[in-house]
Amino acid sequence: MNDNWLNKVNWGKDGLVPAVAQEASSGRVLTVAWMNREALKKTVETGEVHYWSRSRNKLWHKGEESGHVQKVRSVRLDCDEDVVLVEVEQIGGIACHTGRHSCFFNRLEPDPAGGVAGRQWVAVEPVLRDPKEIYRK
Amino acid sequence: MNDNWLNKVNWGKDGLVPAVAQEASSGRVLTVAWMNREALKKTVETGEVHYWSRSRNKLWHKGEESGHVQKVRSVRLDCDEDVVLVEVEQIGGIACHTGRHSCFFNRLEPDPAGGVAGRQWVAVEPVLRDPKEIYRK
Repeated sequence: MNDNWLNKVNWGKDGLVPAVAQEASSGRVLTVAWMNREALKKTVETGEVHYWSRSRNKLWHKGEESGHVQKVRSVRLDCDEDVVLVEVEQIGGIACHTGRHSCFFNRLEPDPAGGVAGRQWVAVEPVLRDPKEIYRK
Repeated sequence: MNDNWLNKVNWGKDGLVPAVAQEASSGRVLTVAWMNREALKKTVETGEVHYWSRSRNKLWHKGEESGHVQKVRSVRLDCDEDVVLVEVEQIGGIACHTGRHSCFFNRLEPDPAGGVAGRQWVAVEPVLRDPKEIYRK
């Protein structure tokens, strides 16, 4: 296997780059996580998105527990070659561990109690499935 | 000004989080760069996207030289509170310093010269305007 294409990526000091998963059907940005060389290689070779989990310090096959895998449609690299964009089909329609469609469910809104300049993050997307159901063995 | 909403963000060890700019009209992911606390605050207060430039080590008002500013439509935060997603209107229709619409113009494709397993990054988006014209003073 010729891995020259992996050498084109400007891996950070920690060996990671941010990876954005965008849903092909809706255009929604679902998740942003991290990939190392192995994660990107596995993503391309298997056709399912793999990240590097910084909290667990291990390769993370997205959906390995929940079944909510992300099927790869295309892979892109930005002009600085240090961010990956993956166009995906989100199996189960749920990308977030909270049971929501997208991880970006917090929207910045004016805070009615905060006066003119107050702002607050508001969860604006419904929980589609209880995480307790998603992650039970 | 009440800045409590800025404290909700899980700033990284370097004080930064990745920030994704997505075009409201097209759904295209245009740029991914970095924000620190000041950049996010300026983004929200001015209504134009500000990043932290890691290469120049300074606040970067996107479009300050080119005029290709990103007007803020909405700001979101992900479930881990460590990635920002900004929905923008891209002034001039060009987000990338190469003169392309989006920074994600490199697509991974099979390499005809690389045999069965070869792959290569191919620039699949046109240059809409010569960078020499964009950045001349």
